[in-house]
Amino acid sequence: MLDPVEFKDWQIAEEAEKSMLSPEQWRDKLGLTNEELIPYGKTPKLDFIKIMDRLKDRPNGKFIEVTAITPTPLGEGKSTTSLGLIEGLGKRGMNVGGCLRQPSGGPTMNVKGTAAGGGNALLIPMTEFSLGLTGDINDIQNAHNLCMVALNARMQHEANYSDEELAKRNLKRLDIDPKRVEMGWVMDFAAQGLRNIIMGLGGKRDGFMMSSKFAITVSSELMAILAVATDLKDLRERISNMIVAYDKYGNYVTAGDLEVDGAMAAFMRNTINPTLCYTVEHQPVLVHAGPFANIAIGQSSIIGDRVGLKMFDYHVTESGFAADIGFEKFWNVKTRLSGLEANVSVLVATIRALKMHGGGPAVVPGRPIPEEYTKQNMALVEKGCENLLHHMKNIKKSGINPVVCINSFATDTKEEIALVKKIVEEAGGRCALSEHWKYGGDGALELADAVMDACKEPVDFKYLYPLDMPLRQRVDIIAREVYGADGVDWTPDAEAKAKAFEADPKFNDFQTMMVKSHLSLSHDPTLKGVPKNWRLPIRDVLVYGGAKFICPMAGGISMMPGTGSDPGFRRIDVDVNTGKVSGLF
Amino acid sequence: MLDPVEFKDWQIAEEAEKSMLSPEQWRDKLGLTNEELIPYGKTPKLDFIKIMDRLKDRPNGKFIEVTAITPTPLGEGKSTTSLGLIEGLGKRGMNVGGCLRQPSGGPTMNVKGTAAGGGNALLIPMTEFSLGLTGDINDIQNAHNLCMVALNARMQHEANYSDEELAKRNLKRLDIDPKRVEMGWVMDFAAQGLRNIIMGLGGKRDGFMMSSKFAITVSSELMAILAVATDLKDLRERISNMIVAYDKYGNYVTAGDLEVDGAMAAFMRNTINPTLCYTVEHQPVLVHAGPFANIAIGQSSIIGDRVGLKMFDYHVTESGFAADIGFEKFWNVKTRLSGLEANVSVLVATIRALKMHGGGPAVVPGRPIPEEYTKQNMALVEKGCENLLHHMKNIKKSGINPVVCINSFATDTKEEIALVKKIVEEAGGRCALSEHWKYGGDGALELADAVMDACKEPVDFKYLYPLDMPLRQRVDIIAREVYGADGVDWTPDAEAKAKAFEADPKFNDFQTMMVKSHLSLSHDPTLKGVPKNWRLPIRDVLVYGGAKFICPMAGGISMMPGTGSDPGFRRIDVDVNTGKVSGLF
Repeated sequence: MLDPVEFKDWQIAEEAEKSMLSPEQWRDKLGLTNEELIPYGKTPKLDFIKIMDRLKDRPNGKFIEVTAITPTPLGEGKSTTSLGLIEGLGKRGMNVGGCLRQPSGGPTMNVKGTAAGGGNALLIPMTEFSLGLTGDINDIQNAHNLCMVALNARMQHEANYSDEELAKRNLKRLDIDPKRVEMGWVMDFAAQGLRNIIMGLGGKRDGFMMSSKFAITVSSELMAILAVATDLKDLRERISNMIVAYDKYGNYVTAGDLEVDGAMAAFMRNTINPTLCYTVEHQPVLVHAGPFANIAIGQSSIIGDRVGLKMFDYHVTESGFAADIGFEKFWNVKTRLSGLEANVSVLVATIRALKMHGGGPAVVPGRPIPEEYTKQNMALVEKGCENLLHHMKNIKKSGINPVVCINSFATDTKEEIALVKKIVEEAGGRCALSEHWKYGGDGALELADAVMDACKEPVDFKYLYPLDMPLRQRVDIIAREVYGADGVDWTPDAEAKAKAFEADPKFNDFQTMMVKSHLSLSHDPTLKGVPKNWRLPIRDVLVYGGAKFICPMAGGISMMPGTGSDPGFRRIDVDVNTGKVSGLF
Repeated sequence: MLDPVEFKDWQIAEEAEKSMLSPEQWRDKLGLTNEELIPYGKTPKLDFIKIMDRLKDRPNGKFIEVTAITPTPLGEGKSTTSLGLIEGLGKRGMNVGGCLRQPSGGPTMNVKGTAAGGGNALLIPMTEFSLGLTGDINDIQNAHNLCMVALNARMQHEANYSDEELAKRNLKRLDIDPKRVEMGWVMDFAAQGLRNIIMGLGGKRDGFMMSSKFAITVSSELMAILAVATDLKDLRERISNMIVAYDKYGNYVTAGDLEVDGAMAAFMRNTINPTLCYTVEHQPVLVHAGPFANIAIGQSSIIGDRVGLKMFDYHVTESGFAADIGFEKFWNVKTRLSGLEANVSVLVATIRALKMHGGGPAVVPGRPIPEEYTKQNMALVEKGCENLLHHMKNIKKSGINPVVCINSFATDTKEEIALVKKIVEEAGGRCALSEHWKYGGDGALELADAVMDACKEPVDFKYLYPLDMPLRQRVDIIAREVYGADGVDWTPDAEAKAKAFEADPKFNDFQTMMVKSHLSLSHDPTLKGVPKNWRLPIRDVLVYGGAKFICPMAGGISMMPGTGSDPGFRRIDVDVNTGKVSGLF
């Protein structure tokens, strides 16, 4: 085992990849048939329809969700903890696996790096995982951009041709309002220069001139759809219903109206099969979908969980952002769509984040960490536990059993860790320290044991709200019960939209997808701990017709991150003799 | 065998794909080892380094290039003939294979359709072939666009930061001239609305504002490089040297200067391995690279030919456009870079195209074909053979043996075919009728026999010009000897550029890549037959620093086609129960 203090993640991955398993070995290890494993270079896909069909009568395994307290801007290691827990359960001899989101090329090439975990809780093959896997993001990008090609070309041809000319091609005028084109283009990099563009400059045959935008591919509605679709039929239907624009009379124009939905689905045909990756300790991890945590569920797919729960006795999955966003969507949206109730939620905390909530100075990416975070400070830790307890209480409201995991840092002191454990246990929770980053599965045994113990407890699962509750009431409950707000303030525009959605039966089965900062329980990222005496402002409401999401906006979101001045791509290279990639992080 | 008069190509493919070969079957059929065949879903890749290493001492097979007379705008079936020839040689019991270009999503989703051949000379798996294969085009697109992200972000940061701030990040100011950014973005669809854009609108952090453009991905310099690179090392070096812009002092700025070349190569690492497809009669066809025929070689890769010539006794490849462009580049560029001299060039002609050259009315895509083309007309055919004989004479200048192939149409008469054969044979050439579209390999036996016969003849290969000949003199020879021009007229700007290239030793080993209409031997697409008394105008000279191409421009080129008013994507769909795609053509 390499020491992650000395070695970079890509070096640890390279070492582990010297003993990769062949598809045949995976077939035997997981009890799959040849037809269920689709080799794709170094990373096979799993044929989910075939596996589900064979295992349909097998009882589901235990279902463990991993979430986190409100993080610092550096993140507190949910993916690393998920992988560490899988390794720890593996060390205990369990049949364990999980499903994680796939990373986006934007962060991977920029300053955040890939999302393969870290240290000895790392996913391999790391290069394939980090650079597009078996092509799902590319497939989404192609399907999405083909829709935009269809949209803009249609606007051009409608501008240039008479109704008679259109009729010859069996086309009816859609009369798209150029000021109400909702959809933009996608590219899976942090391309801030494409956030706002003017397109269609030139002559009559150079497209329709309009303002447009690029978002990062993983924010595409198609990615949101992939994460919640139950099968290819569901995916196909949702694609048809994607709203791309409004016509001049205010009606929706969909991908189906553009007659491009079938071709989009053709590009997406392979995306329904999860890809099989594994930890450096050879524990299986499905990788499937990677949607945003604001306008989408921020979790790997329902398909991935369905397959994983059939294949594994313990199936681990992760929610994006902190528990007020990630867990809340897991609880009230993903579970409602999948019917799969979790046994345990692991709430990841770090001494660093607790100190921040206790009043520590701001943690700023790229700047040295203040010394409050590297020296023992019991008062900051104690005060900061308020945030942890708030999230723990929320998990308990769902009926799912929480297990707090302290993701260990070298600078944590024994006294600080003991204090957190004491506070959690006094509040009726389980708490485990985990050192998976440094020691892999051997470092995660305490966590694994606590999770197995918690899995023995019954779950009295209940939703926070019924789906037939009107939209504004749902938002009010989420704001009060989950975020701790005193209520919700709607702008007149947002309220008018909400009323229209409430009145239109088309939206009866649409899910509520809250958009809010993950850096605070409130909408204001500077408010740490458990903010009091505040109201949640809703400024706008977005709708995704294919994903069937209604997104109340308690803050702005950037759908296209920016590439920084010292991006990670500067350090990435390939060995021209072996094809091996170095510098991923 | 399905009758292509009654069944669409995708239906013929679907029928043939009921008996697809497994990777293991291909391994045994082609005598490969397990390690040399990399399964990728339905279409395995071949590990070219491993195969070349094992077969390095095996003599090369016979090398057959397929080109065409000046076509109508509908195309005269080079890919179909290439596949038919492979099937015909297979029916004669030969160990035969080939290498073809991969198609682009632009034409596939638009009006031209995929490039899988047609009828019973068709490539499978057709869906995978048509929709991105094993991801090469996606890899190129990602690598290319990452370079543009790096470029625009660098311009933003240089505008926002002082030299001192840049130095903290170990960056030296590149001072890119925003008016001299050479590179644009790429997308593999016919997205005319992205031909001309303004990007970087917004604030200081929303990129650098500039005019920009999107080209279709297959026109990327990276695709041009993939087609001529000999291995990953060569590919890596060429990427570094790609010219993305000029600085404010007129110096080149390269991908290497942006420090993004390593990450680009990482995205391209898998593209060096050709993908194994096959005809509906189970004859192997490598698919590798798909560069433009104007600013690039318009042919599948050198890597593909190197592997194919080792694996097969007869290896067939195709050149894009007509012989004045495609064959000329095969002859003077691809062969010079690869050292692989062809034995035979098959010159594809149709009675339709011959009639057009003989003075028939214009052939316009999407309009009914005039009756001159569907009824016997000996005079038009006879006159039109001038164009055919001109191309045949050019092939003979290289020392390669020509074989004329009449690609059969149902409306051709016996008398018309006999006339063409008589004219070709009187000029000392071989001529074969081929009916592969309708009958597969059984319809291509006459062609296969003629090719095998021609392969027995010696080849006295010679280039048209030596590489140390100055640029303008090279262009003059190509214009006079290949096109039949009386000379070349340079605009003052173009001539100044040419002089600068001639004077700079950096360009000594750059290849000449002519850009000219393929619809005429001249630069004027309306001039059919063999135009007389004309001079070739060169308006500009482009340079590709990584591909090492100098492109004299005898005409405009569109790097981004447009999506028409009745595009093919309207008819494409997927079966949600089986995942099978219908409607590709």
